[in-house]
Amino acid sequence: MITRTLAELAAELGGEVVGDGSIEIRGVAGIREAMPGDITFLANSRYESYLEVTRASAVICARDARAAARPLIQVDNPYLAFQRVVRIFRPDVLRQAPGVHPSAIVSPGASVGEDASIGPHCVVEAGARIGRRSVIMSGCYLGHNIAIGEDCLLYPRVTVREECLLGDRCILHPGVVVGSDGFGFAFDAGSYHKVPQVGNVVIGNDVEIGSNTTIDRATTHSTRIGDGTKIDNLVQIGHNVIVGQHCIIVAQVGISGSTELEDYVTLGGQAGLVGHITIGRRATVGAQSGVAKSVPPDTVVTGYPAVQHGVWKRLHAFAQRLPQLFQRTKALEERVLRLEGQREREEVR
Amino acid sequence: MITRTLAELAAELGGEVVGDGSIEIRGVAGIREAMPGDITFLANSRYESYLEVTRASAVICARDARAAARPLIQVDNPYLAFQRVVRIFRPDVLRQAPGVHPSAIVSPGASVGEDASIGPHCVVEAGARIGRRSVIMSGCYLGHNIAIGEDCLLYPRVTVREECLLGDRCILHPGVVVGSDGFGFAFDAGSYHKVPQVGNVVIGNDVEIGSNTTIDRATTHSTRIGDGTKIDNLVQIGHNVIVGQHCIIVAQVGISGSTELEDYVTLGGQAGLVGHITIGRRATVGAQSGVAKSVPPDTVVTGYPAVQHGVWKRLHAFAQRLPQLFQRTKALEERVLRLEGQREREEVR
Amino acid sequence: MITRTLAELAAELGGEVVGDGSIEIRGVAGIREAMPGDITFLANSRYESYLEVTRASAVICARDARAAARPLIQVDNPYLAFQRVVRIFRPDVLRQAPGVHPSAIVSPGASVGEDASIGPHCVVEAGARIGRRSVIMSGCYLGHNIAIGEDCLLYPRVTVREECLLGDRCILHPGVVVGSDGFGFAFDAGSYHKVPQVGNVVIGNDVEIGSNTTIDRATTHSTRIGDGTKIDNLVQIGHNVIVGQHCIIVAQVGISGSTELEDYVTLGGQAGLVGHITIGRRATVGAQSGVAKSVPPDTVVTGYPAVQHGVWKRLHAFAQRLPQLFQRTKALEERVLRLEGQREREEVR
Repeated sequence: MITRTLAELAAELGGEVVGDGSIEIRGVAGIREAMPGDITFLANSRYESYLEVTRASAVICARDARAAARPLIQVDNPYLAFQRVVRIFRPDVLRQAPGVHPSAIVSPGASVGEDASIGPHCVVEAGARIGRRSVIMSGCYLGHNIAIGEDCLLYPRVTVREECLLGDRCILHPGVVVGSDGFGFAFDAGSYHKVPQVGNVVIGNDVEIGSNTTIDRATTHSTRIGDGTKIDNLVQIGHNVIVGQHCIIVAQVGISGSTELEDYVTLGGQAGLVGHITIGRRATVGAQSGVAKSVPPDTVVTGYPAVQHGVWKRLHAFAQRLPQLFQRTKALEERVLRLEGQREREEVR
Repeated sequence: MITRTLAELAAELGGEVVGDGSIEIRGVAGIREAMPGDITFLANSRYESYLEVTRASAVICARDARAAARPLIQVDNPYLAFQRVVRIFRPDVLRQAPGVHPSAIVSPGASVGEDASIGPHCVVEAGARIGRRSVIMSGCYLGHNIAIGEDCLLYPRVTVREECLLGDRCILHPGVVVGSDGFGFAFDAGSYHKVPQVGNVVIGNDVEIGSNTTIDRATTHSTRIGDGTKIDNLVQIGHNVIVGQHCIIVAQVGISGSTELEDYVTLGGQAGLVGHITIGRRATVGAQSGVAKSVPPDTVVTGYPAVQHGVWKRLHAFAQRLPQLFQRTKALEERVLRLEGQREREEVR
Repeated sequence: MITRTLAELAAELGGEVVGDGSIEIRGVAGIREAMPGDITFLANSRYESYLEVTRASAVICARDARAAARPLIQVDNPYLAFQRVVRIFRPDVLRQAPGVHPSAIVSPGASVGEDASIGPHCVVEAGARIGRRSVIMSGCYLGHNIAIGEDCLLYPRVTVREECLLGDRCILHPGVVVGSDGFGFAFDAGSYHKVPQVGNVVIGNDVEIGSNTTIDRATTHSTRIGDGTKIDNLVQIGHNVIVGQHCIIVAQVGISGSTELEDYVTLGGQAGLVGHITIGRRATVGAQSGVAKSVPPDTVVTGYPAVQHGVWKRLHAFAQRLPQLFQRTKALEERVLRLEGQREREEVR
């Protein structure tokens, strides 16, 4: 069993102990589920009320957190510190062993880096290159001439089609499809004719892609995902899309062809973007929003079609008061009618 | 060929024959496609007009159904009775045979229950336990220390990652992913750092999960799906979500992290729920709605952001009449201007 | 290396050269990425400004395109011509070789057509029929009694469940699920009871289905996809849906049970359709729209609930001006109050 004193943990995290630094920590858990012996964390003010009732032996919190009944470690970024503590108490022990499983079909024309691992029932085609220490779990398909960098982790049943390139330290969750054909058809004489999709997908370093997400290859040239970008489950990224660095794309988002995200863009869950637009650096798109035109940098947009969040909120607030507006208009009509009647009677007099 | 007289079927269903009970039924079909010899059912009043024109030899209907040209079986719940009749005429005959297929890679540290079946190209890791009579079809991945109860059916290419637990009689359709990492990142110094997701997913009994649906493991502790809950295709369930018993989650719904559904909740297709809220017992969320705050029990909500359905309908009805409101306001402005003009002329006089 | 003179290409495309027909073309690329030696195309007026700056040696454009600094091939349908040119310069060379891979598990009761190819780790059950020259890539599951026509291409990890039928020249991208159970449950005594789904899916010729898309089998009878229909990634098609010929269904669309699309329907990305409605021939549903009732032929609908696009646009424009309407009403109230005050003072006088 892994144990640390609170003071030892604080030192590893660059934090400051408030309370008894000698207590022993043996695990880590969420604030509601933690048990004695666990350390937990408080990063969302929504959970502040749990600070008094949690059974955790200690809590990681912000520098300015108010004192509590139990020992604290104060840090600059509690969620980041929590991330490190989880790795301490729950190291990753189940990694697939290096080497090629005998049931995998690896082309003699493929290259597998030192200490890389190719799991059962994988298929690795000619020209594929797998970097050092990368782990490819069971049932993955890696097409011709693909490249996967070092220290990547591909969970079971990932498909990376021919010519696609991944950087280092990428994580692809089960069922991810990289490099399927873009959705392009030319209409002629009553039917649609497939436009061959002969580009590829190029993915940077430290990219994570969620379960069953699909990223289409470019018609020609490349669909691109920048370094450090994190993509959730069931996301659709169309052909020739360019995603910048350090973007966050929440589950079930859809991005249409040739649209570009600059760096540090955040897209809320189920948002949809039309093709051929640009989302500026550090812009945020609200959940379920439908973006029909380019968004300037540092802007938050919401709604369908998406507009600046402040504008949307104002319009939405007015819309809530529509019934009263109808009533006010009806009252005005009656009052004006009365005034007009009086006027008429006067004229007659 | 399986045959039954109408009277025999009525007895099996606890229903009452109206008409000739001696006719022979040889199959079952929808009301529009049924042929002579088939029995069909009427559960949706939308299809009542087909009652006169269906070619079916008999119809299962509600107790209060009006008489028709053809023989009826009247029952309390026609859709439930139909479900039983389908099983009579179309028994499930294609079940994979018990035993471990020679191409499957089953760890010696895994346990496979009596009469369970592990299909071709499956991978079952150490510590995994598969219950009696459960069927795991080809290409499934079952991680370390998972447990699957008795009489489960996993269709091809399902992934259940390490430590996740399933109850009895669960059905997981092709491509389901249980236990992929939750989407959690701590931002620091210009980039996102992965928060390890070390919890699991715990699924109750009699749960069905649709094709390519993804259910993320908890950061710590468990994401939970209660007994009897039915989940459609392409649904996303985030980390630490709690779904109660007997919920219905229609296709393409997205539920963000730490949100809770109490029992008997229904979520319409493509609905999206933000994180950290509670949907009360027996509440219903309309299709495509965006739920941004908790919903009380026994409530129907609709829209974006979702509000009580009655409120939404009223606001929507007013919004339809906006053009007229603009006209009425314009007319009022003209009338008031006229009154003011008259007043001014009067003053001058 | 494949090369053509511009004049040769024009002849193959039935187009007309404007400029020097003797220049040599060695590749094909998008207008922004093209390099000297490449031919590119202009089909979207949005990209017209690139015509002056592209490095391409020649451009395929419409018959009425204005002259440019570089050689042109003028054709009737530039996108269609581009499609042909891509095939010339980038022929499909990576096709899996014919024959059954030794790691595939093919039932002796299955039939595999001449020159068909069954990839590694596939499973083909008894009664399955694979047509001539069809290619089934690694890890596909083809159930009992399915049929796949000639010249089909199934990418890795496709599931086609028992009894489902595909026509000729279909393309199914990775992770597609055809024939999973429809979402049907009868509620009784506090829980949901599965309605067995014993129909199938019938897919016509020249159908393309995007990655991780799911198409459910009918309860009884068939879910149908007509000839020439193209379906994008992550689409959900419910049980007993009928899709006509030459429809376009963009990514993440959801179609509920028993709904019918007539021929040449287009559904924008993330649109959702309720069950039991009909979308008329050549109708178009806007992206993210929620369709709650049938749509007549040749109609464009948008919004939630979807209405004719012109109506939606008008209502939306009025809604943008709501804040002004509130101001106008407030101003009217003040003016009427003043008029009433004057009237009262008058009466007193």
